Amino acid sequence: MARPDEDGLIARYFAPLAGPGADGLRDDAATLTPGAGCDLVLTADAIVAGVHYFPDDPPDSIARKALGVNVSDLAAKGATPLGYLVTLALPDDWTEEWLAGFAAGLRTGLSAFGGHLLGGDTVRAAGPMVIGVTAIGEVPRGGMVRRMTARIGDRLCVSGTIGDAAVGLHLRGSSPPAWAGALGGADRDALIDRYWHPRPRIALAPALRRHARAAMDISDGLAGDLAKMLKGEGRSAEIDLQALPLSGAAGRALTAAPGVMTTLLTGGDDYEILCAVAPESLDALLAEAAMAGVPLACIGTVTAGTEAPSFRDASGQVQRFGAGSFSHF
Amino acid sequence: MARPDEDGLIARYFAPLAGPGADGLRDDAATLTPGAGCDLVLTADAIVAGVHYFPDDPPDSIARKALGVNVSDLAAKGATPLGYLVTLALPDDWTEEWLAGFAAGLRTGLSAFGGHLLGGDTVRAAGPMVIGVTAIGEVPRGGMVRRMTARIGDRLCVSGTIGDAAVGLHLRGSSPPAWAGALGGADRDALIDRYWHPRPRIALAPALRRHARAAMDISDGLAGDLAKMLKGEGRSAEIDLQALPLSGAAGRALTAAPGVMTTLLTGGDDYEILCAVAPESLDALLAEAAMAGVPLACIGTVTAGTEAPSFRDASGQVQRFGAGSFSHF
Repeated sequence: MARPDEDGLIARYFAPLAGPGADGLRDDAATLTPGAGCDLVLTADAIVAGVHYFPDDPPDSIARKALGVNVSDLAAKGATPLGYLVTLALPDDWTEEWLAGFAAGLRTGLSAFGGHLLGGDTVRAAGPMVIGVTAIGEVPRGGMVRRMTARIGDRLCVSGTIGDAAVGLHLRGSSPPAWAGALGGADRDALIDRYWHPRPRIALAPALRRHARAAMDISDGLAGDLAKMLKGEGRSAEIDLQALPLSGAAGRALTAAPGVMTTLLTGGDDYEILCAVAPESLDALLAEAAMAGVPLACIGTVTAGTEAPSFRDASGQVQRFGAGSFSHF
Repeated sequence: MARPDEDGLIARYFAPLAGPGADGLRDDAATLTPGAGCDLVLTADAIVAGVHYFPDDPPDSIARKALGVNVSDLAAKGATPLGYLVTLALPDDWTEEWLAGFAAGLRTGLSAFGGHLLGGDTVRAAGPMVIGVTAIGEVPRGGMVRRMTARIGDRLCVSGTIGDAAVGLHLRGSSPPAWAGALGGADRDALIDRYWHPRPRIALAPALRRHARAAMDISDGLAGDLAKMLKGEGRSAEIDLQALPLSGAAGRALTAAPGVMTTLLTGGDDYEILCAVAPESLDALLAEAAMAGVPLACIGTVTAGTEAPSFRDASGQVQRFGAGSFSHF
């Protein structure tokens, strides 16, 4: 296929995804009319080939991840997605086929998550591909759920299942671990799918706004992100590993190799929600999460202390992980 | 200097630039409360080392350019800057000194342009540095000035002086042209300064909202951007080169080498405003621009036609430039 120029690329692949205020991406900016009585919530996350994804991952999966990691932040803040600006730094060897697949993934992501494409930029850069997304959502005025506001005594909950993507990343890599052999094909596919395709918990946003005291999405592993959430205020946490929600596939990996627990807790890419809730609000939060169809499990409590959060297993053994146990940076 | 981790970098260099809704950049998202009765205006432009700037340009100049090219889009749309999200893809050899200089440039830009830092992301990428900025501004509801809405008969105006940065880029390069010798040190410095430091025309935004029919900023050269503005609707333009506003330095370069005119018209990086105005509104626009302290010159007229805009010189000779005569892409 001949390569179109930048305007041609935009018209062919991105304009069909544009929102009402974006005028088919033919202008240098888009307008967005916020809902009456709403605050906007803004977040930006970039993903880099070879760092956050494999260069030969399917392009539609890469697009869904680029959107999904940002929508996950919005969901954790209690926000409803409105729109996105996507900046692509393309290496010299980009192909139109790749871009067509990427645009298809954006379309899938927009349908699943909500919101429209509002703009972006396409530049050439002689390095790995860099995909930067700014996501804009809205909450009722003053309603954004903060990260740092958990209090001692709050209960800690997580959505979905923890650690699947981290195991999926190992399976996707060029040298899968020995325990990979203990998993069947369906398990492997399910775990790699979790690595490729974040499922941001948008459906949980209203319940978080109503009942959570603090929330964040889990992108760098539960252990590190929990430490981040409680940092610097004399707060720690006790986590009961028996309450940790695991998928069947992750459970089987853990049975094959107990050391997988560290991967589950520190591996990253969960894109589940970690939240703190006052004890008296826990039942209401769990009930609303259930009504929204989002599994939510209570896994521990915020405690007073300056040590890293403790993770206690069935035998009573306690493990702690330093802050920043995982970082994409 | 030891390299801090990502959180340390953010706390040290970027948190002091954060706006009121950004909570010291300690959360994964920021809130923004739009003004009553306002629309938001959103734009994203990235700059890449070796493409949009020289890798050894001063880091504070690079930061001012990254912000400035985005603010220039807001100004052309009639918008007042509110905030920015900045995504940095850092190559392996980044230094904290560089980052300190970059943050200082961001501070200078924020002071000059208005608005606060709302968030962003810092990632590692083994390639040239990529700096992506999303800028958010506001206009009274429905007030964004569009790019594609000029009508036949409208007068065409440009702010400031045209072509300085394009000449500055030649002077900044490793093999300056022969005519560079005809310029004194002050001229060279002034022209390179225009290349390094866009001066987005924020002061013109209210007058554009009130009187312009269409506007865009000139980033890829007057000739190409004018063609872009008029594309696809049976519209062309006649430009009188004698009316083109030139700086003294650019005029002296042109005297030394008449071929410099092509550079002035197609070289890019002006970050001036190109606007179309109904003939009956021209005087009001010029008067308000003068009151705002922004030089604005009427250089031609939108005409019916499908040819590229014509540029007529003092001898009556007409030159046309194809669309896309310049592209950073």
